Order: sequence, then structure tokens, then C-alpha cells
Amino acid sequence: MTLTTNTALLTDLYQLTMMNGYVEAGIADRMACFDLFFRQLPFGGGYAVAAGLEDALDYVANLRFSREDIDYLASLNLFPVKFLEQLSEFRFTGEINALPEGTLVFPFEPILQVRGTLLEAQFLETALLNIVNFQTLIATKAARIWESSDRAPVIEFGLRRAQGPNGGMSATRAAYIGGCEATSNILAGKEFGIPVSGTMAHSWIMAHPDELTAFRAYAKIYPNKSIFLVDTFDTLREGIPHAITVGKEMKSQGHSLMGIRLDSGDLAYLSIEARQMLNEAGLHDVKIVASNDLDEWIVEALRHQGSKIDIWGVGTKLVTAAPDSALGGVYKLVALADERGEMRPRIKISQNVEKTTTPGEKAVYRIFDCNANMIADVMALSNEPPPSDTSVVIHHPQIEYKFSRIDTIHRIESLLVTVFAKGKRLLPHTDIQKIRARTKAQLDSLHSTHRRLTNPHSYRVGFSKTLRELKGAMIKENMERV
Amino acid sequence: MTLTTNTALLTDLYQLTMMNGYVEAGIADRMACFDLFFRQLPFGGGYAVAAGLEDALDYVANLRFSREDIDYLASLNLFPVKFLEQLSEFRFTGEINALPEGTLVFPFEPILQVRGTLLEAQFLETALLNIVNFQTLIATKAARIWESSDRAPVIEFGLRRAQGPNGGMSATRAAYIGGCEATSNILAGKEFGIPVSGTMAHSWIMAHPDELTAFRAYAKIYPNKSIFLVDTFDTLREGIPHAITVGKEMKSQGHSLMGIRLDSGDLAYLSIEARQMLNEAGLHDVKIVASNDLDEWIVEALRHQGSKIDIWGVGTKLVTAAPDSALGGVYKLVALADERGEMRPRIKISQNVEKTTTPGEKAVYRIFDCNANMIADVMALSNEPPPSDTSVVIHHPQIEYKFSRIDTIHRIESLLVTVFAKGKRLLPHTDIQKIRARTKAQLDSLHSTHRRLTNPHSYRVGFSKTLRELKGAMIKENMERV
Repeated sequence: MTLTTNTALLTDLYQLTMMNGYVEAGIADRMACFDLFFRQLPFGGGYAVAAGLEDALDYVANLRFSREDIDYLASLNLFPVKFLEQLSEFRFTGEINALPEGTLVFPFEPILQVRGTLLEAQFLETALLNIVNFQTLIATKAARIWESSDRAPVIEFGLRRAQGPNGGMSATRAAYIGGCEATSNILAGKEFGIPVSGTMAHSWIMAHPDELTAFRAYAKIYPNKSIFLVDTFDTLREGIPHAITVGKEMKSQGHSLMGIRLDSGDLAYLSIEARQMLNEAGLHDVKIVASNDLDEWIVEALRHQGSKIDIWGVGTKLVTAAPDSALGGVYKLVALADERGEMRPRIKISQNVEKTTTPGEKAVYRIFDCNANMIADVMALSNEPPPSDTSVVIHHPQIEYKFSRIDTIHRIESLLVTVFAKGKRLLPHTDIQKIRARTKAQLDSLHSTHRRLTNPHSYRVGFSKTLRELKGAMIKENMERV
Repeated sequence: MTLTTNTALLTDLYQLTMMNGYVEAGIADRMACFDLFFRQLPFGGGYAVAAGLEDALDYVANLRFSREDIDYLASLNLFPVKFLEQLSEFRFTGEINALPEGTLVFPFEPILQVRGTLLEAQFLETALLNIVNFQTLIATKAARIWESSDRAPVIEFGLRRAQGPNGGMSATRAAYIGGCEATSNILAGKEFGIPVSGTMAHSWIMAHPDELTAFRAYAKIYPNKSIFLVDTFDTLREGIPHAITVGKEMKSQGHSLMGIRLDSGDLAYLSIEARQMLNEAGLHDVKIVASNDLDEWIVEALRHQGSKIDIWGVGTKLVTAAPDSALGGVYKLVALADERGEMRPRIKISQNVEKTTTPGEKAVYRIFDCNANMIADVMALSNEPPPSDTSVVIHHPQIEYKFSRIDTIHRIESLLVTVFAKGKRLLPHTDIQKIRARTKAQLDSLHSTHRRLTNPHSYRVGFSKTLRELKGAMIKENMERV
């Protein structure tokens, strides 16, 4: 549903020209391992929330080239017939390890690890990045907004400003995973089982002779589910007084006005005034919903100013992740079999140290203290023994002499889960409520200083000694050659 | 293809609760007119490029509620059976006027105008905004980047960082409309007939024993279509010298290296060095492709620094429209029939003057001088006579005493085209090449000062006297009531 029906060609042309090249060079069948990771946390934040795995697995499991696809590729005059025939039989036969959706993730940690022939593993790059980059970005944004509201209800209603229909659908899903409580997007409600919610638009008011008539008409139809939009003409002089008039009428009939919505003006000032006016009218239960280009910084500022907002409606800046409209995830070759089939680590050097890749097939371990708080993550080679459960030494990823010992270990968790093996999906479809609960549990175990909006305390992610030494040796070898 | 298969529920819940309300209030069948427009140009720019109409018309023409949709809506316990039955028969039976894709558009001008029953016109809001907001945003971004490159070839390859699969597809289409020359996105190439293009990834280099071997292997397979990525290890000491070695080998065999790609480091410095090294080796024809988080400002800065870049590869910031990840388009009721069926203008007042809507069903006229340059646009009521072709007075949208007379009129064009009438699509599918050519022609007719990246000269959009007076009178009436 969320993906277009036929997605094999949803990729960059160079993936196919390289794949054809691998075949010609006789290395297409060598086993390869790729890491999908990002280098920098979005929004200047202290964590990210992994998301997108469900769609990613759907994509991989259903990957087929249709006759039409092959004909189109043939029309480009770039590929030999033999290669196109090979594509028409293409299936992903490899293995994928991944962080379950809702897992907190930090720079350089693999969100996905793909192991397969060079041909098939290469091919997955573009679509996996497209899916995982965006959903991880939005789940992270949603978690930040939810936290900034002090975990009050946040309703997502960004569909009209989302980046296309699917941008809207996957944003809604990821926003719910990150902590939103409901969405206005009905299709997402139906497809993903997310609660749907809504208020009214200005056109409802404008379609009636006046605001009071408009409110009364709505109250009659939705006697216990009405949220009146009060800013069509004048919020304090008309909108709220009219809402109070109708709210009292509803009350006298045994019903109740659910809320009012402020959608313009100064939301701190107006919500404080509105709360007082509602309370003076005995309408203490009527909730105040606020919306208007909100993001985590504005929500936090409004809270600090004593605003009386019960429910936050967030649209554009959540579903498009403003101001960081993309997560810079990458997909890099970390190991490749040699002629004899033995896996060898691979590295890409860059003058920018952050862009130098970390070689080798890896495991990621998360260390918890006795209060179930996350202390640090350790990246290690997957073929070295897991860290001991009493004491771990972690090494700085770049700086050779920097390391630290962690002694307060209560529990160590290996984060990557095998979700695909021998070409078959292993991870069953996971209920979205369960994923959302995982995000919350993970946020609970991350110290609040890492969750601060601005300049958060950096969560420690280190390397095992073996991984540190491998990377150092490979960089050195390269430097000496050049 | 670019839309999900069943899109009737791709909307906000409140559209349906309001529609049910209109039915209950007995006003659902009144004729209504909505304008889709934006209030502010994105990127601080001087123009926008309308796009998305093709998908919008597809959406409207195919709008049906399935049995499954109706069952889901019934499960929400919000709607009476009678209303759900009405939905299951729903078809859009109205009229749509629109700016053809590729038309330059300015704040407050309707990109789309929807005329139909209040019920059906209300319903289209969310999906039309979703489609038109995003594609207009990206076509505009692409035009800006293309202009900043001095109209050099710009290749879009943002799929991996796009906001979901469909975000990628519609971004590719809109980017091509805005001026890009090709895309890396093969599916978009196939679906929309856009030229596809590609280079190679770092994994190609890393899959070979060394860079020179990797280049030679690629050259063998693509003897005239190779673009070597030269920054895997060390651009100046290894990448470019290796490219030159292989480029000369290709030349001696009667082939030619198409280009090299710089993807990191200082692109001005490296491109100047690379050009000199290539020229000294006699490889004057080898193009230099540059990429790495480019946008219109960086492209312009690199050009001003004398960089030697022939082809610009632009991804993330184009397809996600950073830093303005959304166009704030809105959809507002501008007229509604009264009990006797007579259309009456409607207005929404706001303390923010920009947010006060412009009432009435409108026409938009564009005035050209004898050099085919755009001088100004005029918004008028659709039932007043079109402006005379000798002299036009245009009024400032907000400030009552401000107006100006235009005497240098050569030609006046009415911009809105009827694309849908009596529930049927009138506009045939338009070839994307033609749309792209329209964008270019329109940009050619806009003075370069309006096309400047930063603080551009504002293009004049005024009101006819009648429209100005109508809006003024309706605002005054409202102010006096409050």
C-alpha cells in the first residue's frame, strides 16, 4: 500500500550499470556486506529513532523485475541481453540484520546490515535508503516534539503539506511510532491502525451565515465530539464567547464540548485567556487544542511561557522534518569476499574523517546499568566474542589514545536482529502499538540530558579494541600508499 | 502509478465530519468555489513554478470510495449510514480551472479553482494541497538551481534522500519540469519519459583491488559512457591521475572518457585543479561533474569562484526543497450559493492581514509588453469584463490608496484554463517535454531581477478596482460588527 505497486526500478541508474559491471568483472557472486547508517543526528539532537523496517522488508521480499521493466531497460541500450535475462530472474537471496523499529540509534551504528552477493546487496541501496532515511527522520522528529510537550497528546495532521501522498502516509506512520497519539490522515488510520482525530476547518464557519450558527450546527451533529475552531473572525471577542455560549447549551442538554482550537495569533497569550474564560463559564473540561506551524522549539517555548494548551496539533514541520528535511543516511560496503570466498574488510578513506567508513561486519551492544538506564553502546566485529558482562573497555572511534572502562554493567543487549535470511523474511509483521511502546521504553531508559532539545549531552558510542585496531591499520596502510 | 492505488481516504478526518455536517445542515448541495493558493514565495525567491496538475486531475477523476473504505469509516462510529451510502456513490461532478503546469505563479493567485457542490469541493482539499504544494515547491526549487548554474545541465539524483518512494517520484517529475536535464531515478525515467543518467558509487571502487583496476574495468564495459568517481581515496593524488591514465587508454582505443565526478572536498578548488590536469593530458572533452549537498546558493557561489564544473548533480536539497520543506498552500472558500442559488462571495478575516482571504470567483490576467516581457498580473472577479488591452489600473491588494496605471500593454493573457467540467477531465495528458518548455519560456519572459536568488525584485500582482472594493467592503462590514 505505502509503496508503489512495482518497485524494482525505484533505484538509481548507476546501481544497474555497476551490477552489470560486477557481472562482467566476474565478481557479482562474491559475498558482500553493506552497512546502512547515518553520520550525524538530525535537528542537533541527542538521539534518533529507527523506523522504516516494515516497508523495507516488504520492498525486499517483493522485489521482481516485470517484463515491462526489462523492456524499458533494454531500450536504454546500456545492458547486454544476458544481464537483462539475469535481472528477470532476480530475487534477493541474502540476509538482513536490523534494529527493530522504535530502537534508539546513534551515528555510525548500522540500522540495517545487508549480506548477500555483491550483485544483490548493491541493488538494495537506493530504495532501502529512501525508506529508512525518511521514516527514521520523522520518528525522531515526532519523539522530540512529544518530549517537548512534556509528553502531552500530540496529534499529527500534516498530510496537506507532506511531500507527496506517500510522504504523507509514511510520515504519519513514523510520527505515530515516535510518540504521536493520533492522526488526521484517514487512510493511514485504516492501513496502519492508527487512531484518527479531527476538528473543523474555516470553511465550516464560512459556509454558515455566522460563527454562532456554525458552532450550533456542528454541536447538534457531534454533541460529544466537537472541537470548535475559534479564530475565523476574532478569537477573543467572538470565537471563544461563541464557543462558550454553545458549550453551555451542550452542557444543559447533558452533552459536552470536547475542545476549542486556536490556529493563529499568540498561542501562549490566547490559551491563557481562553482557559480563564472557559473556567469562568464553568467549562473546565473543555480542552484547548493549539496549532499553527508548531515544532519542538515552539512547543517548548510555549510551555515555558505558561501556556494552557492541552493538545498539540502538529503538521508541516513534523511531516517534512523542518529544518532538516533529510537524514543523511548512507549505505557502504564494509566487507567483500576474496577469490577464495573469505570475507575481507573494506574501507573508504576520506579527507573528512567522519566520512571514512568503518570496515568489517559488525555487532552493536548496548550497555545498561542496574536502573535500566543506557550507559553506552559498543560497536565490535561480529566474529569477536561479545563483551564480558562485568567490565567493558570502549575506544573512541577516531582518536587513538582515547578509551574508557565501564564497570557498572547490569545488562548487555545485542541490538541487531536477523530479520531476513536465505532470501526469506523472518521478522513477522509487528503491531504498530508494540513499536510505539518500544520507542517510549527506550526514551525512558535514556538519561534526560541526552534528550535535551538543544546541545544535548552526547551519548557514548565506542569501538571494541579489535575494531579500533582494524580501522586504524587500514587507514594507516592507505596513508602510506598515498 | 505515482499515487497509491486507492486514494479516497487520503484526506483529513475533518473533511468527512464537515461533509456529513453539510448534509445534516441541508447545505451540502449548494454551489461553492474554493481557491488553492499560497501566501508566500518559497526560498525567499521571486517566483514559483506551478506543478502537480497532472496528478491532481488523476486523483479527481478516479475518486471512488471502495466497500472497504466505507466499512472502515463505519467502524469509527462518527457517521450515519445514510451519509456513508452517499459516499459510496460519490463522484466529483464539478469544474476545475487551473494554471497549466510550468506557469509562473505568485502569492494569492489561484493555482487551482474548484467549483462544485459544497460537499464535493470541500472533499478535494487535502489531496489537492498535498499534490500541488509539493510539486510546485520542487519545480520552483529546480528552476532556481538551474538558473543559478547559468542554465548548465543539472542532473537530479535525490531518490535515496527523498521523503518516501512517492516523494522521490513526484520530486523527479517536478524537478524535470523546473529545468533539470535528467534523473538517476529509473522508475521515473520509465513512467514519465525523463532521460536517465548515472555515474558510479564508491562501492564500485571498493569492490576492486584498487582504484585504477576499478576504472579500467568500468571503461571496458562502458567505453563511451563512463564517468569516474575520483574521491574514494585521494582526489588529486590518485583519483584524477588514475582517471587520466584510463582516459588516455580509452582515447588510444578510439573511445572517450565522458567525465569525472567530484563528490567531496572543495569543489571550486578541485574542479579548477582537475580541469588543468585533464587539459594538460589532452583530455579537454572530459566533463567535470560535481555533487555534494548542492543547492542554488552553493552553485552560484561556486560559479562566482571560477569553478570549472560542467554538470551539476543535485540530490537531497532539491528533492526535499531544503531549507523550505513545504509550500504553505491553502484551500479557501471564496464563494457560496445562498438559499436561492445565487453565488455570494465569502471571506475569512484574520488579525494577520496576509491571512485574510480574497473573496469571490476570480480570473487572473497576465500583461506582457511588446518585448514579450511580463509586466504585471491582475486578479479580477470572473464576472467583470477583462481588462482593456490599452491601459490597466491595478490596485494594491492591501493598501487602499495604492494603485498604478500600466500603459505599455502589448498582450493580455487569461491564465486559468478549464481542465475539468461537469465531472469530466477536459485537459488531455500533456507531454512532460512540453511542460518543461513552458517553464523555460515563462522564465525567459520574466525580468532577471525577479529571478535573482536573494532579495529579488517583487513582481507586481494587483487587484482590479471591483475586486479591491469588494474585499474592502467585506472587511469593513466585519470590523464594524466586531
